[in-house]
Amino acid sequence: MSLLVVGTVAFDAIETPFGKTDKIVGGAASYIALASSYFTKEINLVSVVGDDFPQEFMNTLKGQGVNLDGLQIKQGEKSFFWSGRYHNDMNSRDTLDTQLNVLGDFDPIVPESYKNCEFLMLGNLMPAVQQKVLSQLSKRPKLIVLDTMNFWMDIAMPELLETLKGIDVLTINDSEARQLSGEYSLVKAAQKILAMGPKVLVIKKGEHGALLFNKEEVFFAPALPLEDVFDPTGAGDSFAGGFIGYLAKTKDISFENMKRAIIFGSAMASFTVEKFGTERLIGLSQEDVSNRVQEFVDLVQFDISLV
Amino acid sequence: MSLLVVGTVAFDAIETPFGKTDKIVGGAASYIALASSYFTKEINLVSVVGDDFPQEFMNTLKGQGVNLDGLQIKQGEKSFFWSGRYHNDMNSRDTLDTQLNVLGDFDPIVPESYKNCEFLMLGNLMPAVQQKVLSQLSKRPKLIVLDTMNFWMDIAMPELLETLKGIDVLTINDSEARQLSGEYSLVKAAQKILAMGPKVLVIKKGEHGALLFNKEEVFFAPALPLEDVFDPTGAGDSFAGGFIGYLAKTKDISFENMKRAIIFGSAMASFTVEKFGTERLIGLSQEDVSNRVQEFVDLVQFDISLV
Repeated sequence: MSLLVVGTVAFDAIETPFGKTDKIVGGAASYIALASSYFTKEINLVSVVGDDFPQEFMNTLKGQGVNLDGLQIKQGEKSFFWSGRYHNDMNSRDTLDTQLNVLGDFDPIVPESYKNCEFLMLGNLMPAVQQKVLSQLSKRPKLIVLDTMNFWMDIAMPELLETLKGIDVLTINDSEARQLSGEYSLVKAAQKILAMGPKVLVIKKGEHGALLFNKEEVFFAPALPLEDVFDPTGAGDSFAGGFIGYLAKTKDISFENMKRAIIFGSAMASFTVEKFGTERLIGLSQEDVSNRVQEFVDLVQFDISLV
Repeated sequence: MSLLVVGTVAFDAIETPFGKTDKIVGGAASYIALASSYFTKEINLVSVVGDDFPQEFMNTLKGQGVNLDGLQIKQGEKSFFWSGRYHNDMNSRDTLDTQLNVLGDFDPIVPESYKNCEFLMLGNLMPAVQQKVLSQLSKRPKLIVLDTMNFWMDIAMPELLETLKGIDVLTINDSEARQLSGEYSLVKAAQKILAMGPKVLVIKKGEHGALLFNKEEVFFAPALPLEDVFDPTGAGDSFAGGFIGYLAKTKDISFENMKRAIIFGSAMASFTVEKFGTERLIGLSQEDVSNRVQEFVDLVQFDISLV
């Protein structure tokens, strides 16, 4: 039951009220692959880096069971780089620098051995690139999850809308759901977006949790109240990785199981924000993950008998 | 097991993106009393109005089982009046007008028959007035819940801190918790506030739900995702009314039961915001309340077996 992860593997430089980093490893696919690796070991990666990317991190990914045959390494070129500064509330940030580098003309090539994947996670990338991956698969995956962002809604809405028609689950944040639908109410926004193609919509609200919608049902998963959110970078990608990793492990794509999957996704995101970059997602034990999920259970479970 | 409710009974004029009202009935104690009346029928009210206040609404309160012997009616004076305009996000608002009127020199008088109340809900008022009520009671209630706001933190912090020493549960919103504690992290804020006196803290986050803290535990209740939030006025007071009403009904002030109580409180708040003012809190059936609580159960309950 293999999982194909597509997205950026890149460098970030991050400033938060707690400190700042030099160039560290980041990128949507890095977080997704690491987070999902706690649930399944058949993970295939499609991405691109320059020859400046550290072998050490590639070894880390391999050590977590991630197959890198689909990771293109462009000699003489540089990896994608993003730099940003978070505001005090950690919910908003300014982009300080973006260097597309190898991402500028990224032509994703799906290796033969990946083409019959059962689960596909299309991390945030230009919709045309996400579409190119879809078109190379030998059969439709059992589940296609797509993450995107406001940037593509601003500059590539027609391609994004076309891509949405063919997917199963869309993950976006609350302001993106409002932008995509033109509705302020998230309930109304969800219904409009579900009419665009996805069967399921996940609306990520950062420290305020996440909502899971299909056309008839809604489920809410809280975020864990943390003493400190150290660095929110990668939280949404870690969430997506935990979500699809759990679904790939359990091979059950019912709405009931997706409820469990977003709790596991939220747990993985809660680890990520505790340290800079991908650091906290490396070397977790199964017990760490179970204990964290138990905290979510304790946080929201109550027992009401209605007469 | 009587419940004493103290707070304003007043007029509001409200503008939201959905419309505007003339002078309508509002006030913290109005919402608290109505919301709690779905759980207990021994409700005593202490408040003050002018001779301009409509007999019809007093009859409505009486019809819901609320005793008005402690409602002072000041002849020749006017009721408290507040006017405000909500922004598009419904989480922020501008005050357009405040006329203290009878509230300016409100001297609360607790009738003899109220003085042995078991449950006390001190709605948002100047801390000195809340303190005056406490000093008139013949014995300490089983549970004292206090609601306050940033305004009193700005102008009457010493009196507020003194009042907090003697209460059991404090309900405030997230920005007020940050202001009172000086901590941005709500987890850290909660621990600082619990050191000020209250044994339990409820942090209300509006559309993002509510957190319940004691020194060892934390519980999160979501807000119901609604198609439209029509008018948020009174949501926090309705929440408090449902919370203490449920506790008074069940006579159980354990943390486990408070979890249930904040779900009932959230349910009452979710009714209030569906219409202007107190309208939606009048004439609900027990079935309406049960069905609404069931929506909260469905929204957050999931079943994870951790190995």
